[in-house]
Amino acid sequence: MSKPKIGVVGYGTIGQRLADGAAPQGDMELVGVVDVAPTLALRALHESGMFYKLYLVDPARKPEFDEIGIPVSGTFEELLEQIDVALDATPAGIGAKNKELYKKHGVKAIFQGGEKSEVADVFFHGYANYEKGIGQNFLKLTSCNTTGLIRAVDAIDREVGVEKIAITIIRRVADPGDTHRGLVDMLKVDPVPNHQAVDLMMIMPHVDATGFLVHTPITHGHIISIVATPRKTISKGTLLDIFRAHPRIRVVRIADGFNSNTALFKYARDLGNKRGDMYEIAVWEECIGFSGKDILFAINIPQEAVTIPETVDGVRACLSMQTDRLEAVGLTNQYLGLESGR
Amino acid sequence: MSKPKIGVVGYGTIGQRLADGAAPQGDMELVGVVDVAPTLALRALHESGMFYKLYLVDPARKPEFDEIGIPVSGTFEELLEQIDVALDATPAGIGAKNKELYKKHGVKAIFQGGEKSEVADVFFHGYANYEKGIGQNFLKLTSCNTTGLIRAVDAIDREVGVEKIAITIIRRVADPGDTHRGLVDMLKVDPVPNHQAVDLMMIMPHVDATGFLVHTPITHGHIISIVATPRKTISKGTLLDIFRAHPRIRVVRIADGFNSNTALFKYARDLGNKRGDMYEIAVWEECIGFSGKDILFAINIPQEAVTIPETVDGVRACLSMQTDRLEAVGLTNQYLGLESGR
Amino acid sequence: MSKPKIGVVGYGTIGQRLADGAAPQGDMELVGVVDVAPTLALRALHESGMFYKLYLVDPARKPEFDEIGIPVSGTFEELLEQIDVALDATPAGIGAKNKELYKKHGVKAIFQGGEKSEVADVFFHGYANYEKGIGQNFLKLTSCNTTGLIRAVDAIDREVGVEKIAITIIRRVADPGDTHRGLVDMLKVDPVPNHQAVDLMMIMPHVDATGFLVHTPITHGHIISIVATPRKTISKGTLLDIFRAHPRIRVVRIADGFNSNTALFKYARDLGNKRGDMYEIAVWEECIGFSGKDILFAINIPQEAVTIPETVDGVRACLSMQTDRLEAVGLTNQYLGLESGR
Amino acid sequence: MSKPKIGVVGYGTIGQRLADGAAPQGDMELVGVVDVAPTLALRALHESGMFYKLYLVDPARKPEFDEIGIPVSGTFEELLEQIDVALDATPAGIGAKNKELYKKHGVKAIFQGGEKSEVADVFFHGYANYEKGIGQNFLKLTSCNTTGLIRAVDAIDREVGVEKIAITIIRRVADPGDTHRGLVDMLKVDPVPNHQAVDLMMIMPHVDATGFLVHTPITHGHIISIVATPRKTISKGTLLDIFRAHPRIRVVRIADGFNSNTALFKYARDLGNKRGDMYEIAVWEECIGFSGKDILFAINIPQEAVTIPETVDGVRACLSMQTDRLEAVGLTNQYLGLESGR
Repeated sequence: MSKPKIGVVGYGTIGQRLADGAAPQGDMELVGVVDVAPTLALRALHESGMFYKLYLVDPARKPEFDEIGIPVSGTFEELLEQIDVALDATPAGIGAKNKELYKKHGVKAIFQGGEKSEVADVFFHGYANYEKGIGQNFLKLTSCNTTGLIRAVDAIDREVGVEKIAITIIRRVADPGDTHRGLVDMLKVDPVPNHQAVDLMMIMPHVDATGFLVHTPITHGHIISIVATPRKTISKGTLLDIFRAHPRIRVVRIADGFNSNTALFKYARDLGNKRGDMYEIAVWEECIGFSGKDILFAINIPQEAVTIPETVDGVRACLSMQTDRLEAVGLTNQYLGLESGR
Repeated sequence: MSKPKIGVVGYGTIGQRLADGAAPQGDMELVGVVDVAPTLALRALHESGMFYKLYLVDPARKPEFDEIGIPVSGTFEELLEQIDVALDATPAGIGAKNKELYKKHGVKAIFQGGEKSEVADVFFHGYANYEKGIGQNFLKLTSCNTTGLIRAVDAIDREVGVEKIAITIIRRVADPGDTHRGLVDMLKVDPVPNHQAVDLMMIMPHVDATGFLVHTPITHGHIISIVATPRKTISKGTLLDIFRAHPRIRVVRIADGFNSNTALFKYARDLGNKRGDMYEIAVWEECIGFSGKDILFAINIPQEAVTIPETVDGVRACLSMQTDRLEAVGLTNQYLGLESGR
Repeated sequence: MSKPKIGVVGYGTIGQRLADGAAPQGDMELVGVVDVAPTLALRALHESGMFYKLYLVDPARKPEFDEIGIPVSGTFEELLEQIDVALDATPAGIGAKNKELYKKHGVKAIFQGGEKSEVADVFFHGYANYEKGIGQNFLKLTSCNTTGLIRAVDAIDREVGVEKIAITIIRRVADPGDTHRGLVDMLKVDPVPNHQAVDLMMIMPHVDATGFLVHTPITHGHIISIVATPRKTISKGTLLDIFRAHPRIRVVRIADGFNSNTALFKYARDLGNKRGDMYEIAVWEECIGFSGKDILFAINIPQEAVTIPETVDGVRACLSMQTDRLEAVGLTNQYLGLESGR
Repeated sequence: MSKPKIGVVGYGTIGQRLADGAAPQGDMELVGVVDVAPTLALRALHESGMFYKLYLVDPARKPEFDEIGIPVSGTFEELLEQIDVALDATPAGIGAKNKELYKKHGVKAIFQGGEKSEVADVFFHGYANYEKGIGQNFLKLTSCNTTGLIRAVDAIDREVGVEKIAITIIRRVADPGDTHRGLVDMLKVDPVPNHQAVDLMMIMPHVDATGFLVHTPITHGHIISIVATPRKTISKGTLLDIFRAHPRIRVVRIADGFNSNTALFKYARDLGNKRGDMYEIAVWEECIGFSGKDILFAINIPQEAVTIPETVDGVRACLSMQTDRLEAVGLTNQYLGLESGR
């Protein structure tokens, strides 16, 4: 039996990383990527010499690519003829339009968090509700903050149960190099509850959640402060054990120099990770506290890459490649080099 | 009987505002301010034409003041001979040294939050523990974040009781114009619990508190997210009523344009407040949520001026000018133009 | 003869300051201001108790103002019936539409730099080309950077002649509290030449100018680095004398603590200036250098208030209140409290 | 004949990159790196699995490395016994102390720009004064800004001659992850001339130079605006040809998306360059202008990696590996993958 074939639609911040995350999955085949214009991302891909096959939304723009020597392999629809699943990382709203094409070509699709929930059959998280995605045609991934948040809360919930959470999201306002959004010398507040708390309750309906969100003028990762009421009392040691056992969570220490979101970005750069990316969320060992039996802890969300593993999990689910949750996420982790104990 | 006489020691960010806050108190007399060098703050005071009498720590530096025409009224110790209470706003550590001089001259003193607690007989907050400061010689004010935080928590506590809180402080890293501290594109984390949670428990020992703190690259105010477990269930309406009744709390709405800490700073500038200062903390009407019976809400701390009213309260307490808490804070508020209902 | 009557159209960042700058002009009368919605700026004006008469663009929105107790004195056109000159500080593009109303009501108008040049009969700067504005109906002010830049270049030009300049503008990307623009951790570049160099040549056609502009993530003032080739050699001392003699230029020293744009903002706050505003540009005494006979120097542009004096000059010009340039700017300066020698 | 042996002393931001730049030089051998403590940089190196041999300044700290499993190969002096040249990237001031050890062990050394000039026999730049470094024992590299600046100015100078320059440096205040320095919402100015202009004149004594420097709150690269008076008139086309022919200069276009220093950093990340580093400075095609015969242009300095190639050139010079300047820099470029025409 041949490997399932994957295409990445939209080669922006997330699309670039979906391609790089899908390519090494030994039991899948990345056929190519789709984009509109000769962006810097495509120029860099071309200059780097490690080119994915490129398909164009609008073939009339091919001359722009010819001029700078970027090879084009065909059209968006020609790619759709070859693939089983589209990883749609287009700007919010475009995915809903693309869905008609996916239906026409009998292609399954996984949308990112910016898309409206109605676009999908299931709102999906690899660890928290893998089973719900099995065999479905259209999945929507949780957003970057929600994906990382659920990793942590789901891990606690499976061990001792989580009754309720109240979160404070300290959010990066733009990605590095993004000129379309930005704030200067300002903390901008959103109404309570934030969508991440609401979204978490859709994936984990047995947890009561609310949350406050502040936009901050930084680019290298969100930080979320979580006040969680567990169903059973839990010690700091047990909590750390739960986190250390999770291949997509990294426990770090301020004492070792991990004093900020940017220290984590710098560390990922120094690891030699492509683009300085990190798939794991981080938990600070020294930032765990208790208020009565409530737990207070903080996580770091590397917003550019954090949803990649759960998106790959989504491929496994919608194609019924694995029916066991832990087997599925385990394979994703293995191909991405993610191990527990960090 | 003559009015009690006040001196301000250290004419930096806080000292400037202490002088401007003490001067209009109709039942006190501001004798003068003390500083070391011809700083920009003193040059501005001089250029503005509204000069306070200036006393020097080191009279040998008087020629530097003469050269630019800033009049000097005497030495630090000469000021101490004339005053009843010193408001010490010197850099952390200097206050402890100054204390020997205060003792020598029989002067009471109120230290700011940067000083170590041992320096004072009482750790003081005008609203929360006014009575403890009555007749004492040395008070230490809570820090800017703690002062604002306690205003809000004490107000709830007096109405329905507060069992415990878990706070997330999103902290400005530097004051406007401060070149000594700063962060770029970074959220820097501190270990849990932060000192503000610990300090709150010293003032309000019946509340269990913990907290997480993140330094952010902004200058115009801290934001604190508070998850509080009240002893009795409380509605959003009642909570807003409590806040609106507090003369040092301002309830604002995102819908009106108060979308950030900086919008509050801009508003204070537009009010014509000197330096764009604000004594009140702000609570966002739309940023109140519930997780079970726990309340989630957020406050803004205008760090440059927030401690001024409580410091003036401290004068009233240590000199036993009023023995009733509400009478004391009410007079401070009246002279500062602070009314409830904002 | 009665005083000429002035209206301010658009009560945003610039409009607020135009009103505050026009009000104290002893030989003019500020009739009122025009705006659209109950903004924070109007709420602050109302809360401050120092209210200007308010006229509405759309009378149907009056109930929104009634609800919060802000008095409304009439409509935009009702104001136009009462005034001689409109100071138009509406967002870019609106001024051109308003011009039809100004014509209809026989009202002269002064537009700000955001408006297209075609809107006006003359592109105006109080110091550099006052005479060209005399008696005209529609003036357009130079933008904030260009206004400040021309002050400095014109002052040198009148003394020794300026052959050419090459400027580097290090630009604040947003005003304090502005959430619509912003950059994070980024220097964004514009093509050469920037509009400020081109605009300067329109006002000073005998100077050859080019320039590079970089947007930076700050809010408190632009800095411009200027390389100027004078027609006669000039010494640093003479240059400083020229600047010190200019009532709208302030010479400052890093050694005194003026180490940044923000130190200047802080100083203006400490002066007690409303909103911490400054009309003067600043020149750093230590930031003057020579490359051959070329001069290198740097100025600070307080973007929120810098154009106010030249706009008031424009009223004097278009109404032919004074025909002598120095008499006109001198009166503006006198009413604004601007003196040379700072 | 065996390859010359190299050691890197100090494994911080520059040291990490010196090791990664020296390792691929086919005609040199990187023996190992020296550091003091188990920093994040060393932890990342270890976790990445691509370990350099590590030597310790203080062998008493070896247990700290043992505890986390980082292998230690010996002491600083033991490394010095094995190498011919030390690339010293220690904090400013330490290099001068290390020099005694280098002398003791007969090892040549290349210091970075932070060190005082007296430490070295020659102030060195690979392109501009390679010949002066030949056979010397101690070289000091120009700083990051000066290195990039000289690349551009030297290239023009060799073609048409440069009479004088006046530069404006818009400087990143901290490296990503650096918590020790920082500015918020501030442009901080330095006195004129900046050290980079002075340093350029030491390397290129026939050029008259002055400069102004502004610190800005960003982390991803400096931008320098240069006003240069060439000895012969030069067209934009010729200037671009000169830059395009330089293997360490990359000509980019705003129109293609290179609108900022951060777009360049993002591009380098997308290229898959380790840490998102870039050795080349960039010149913006659209940011070239003329003021009379003076040229105005702007360059981007990727501060973390820009000095690496010239440091490797220094090895070639001090060991007399090549006596021809172009042969030497050409080999460095070849091993680093730097080609002209970008």
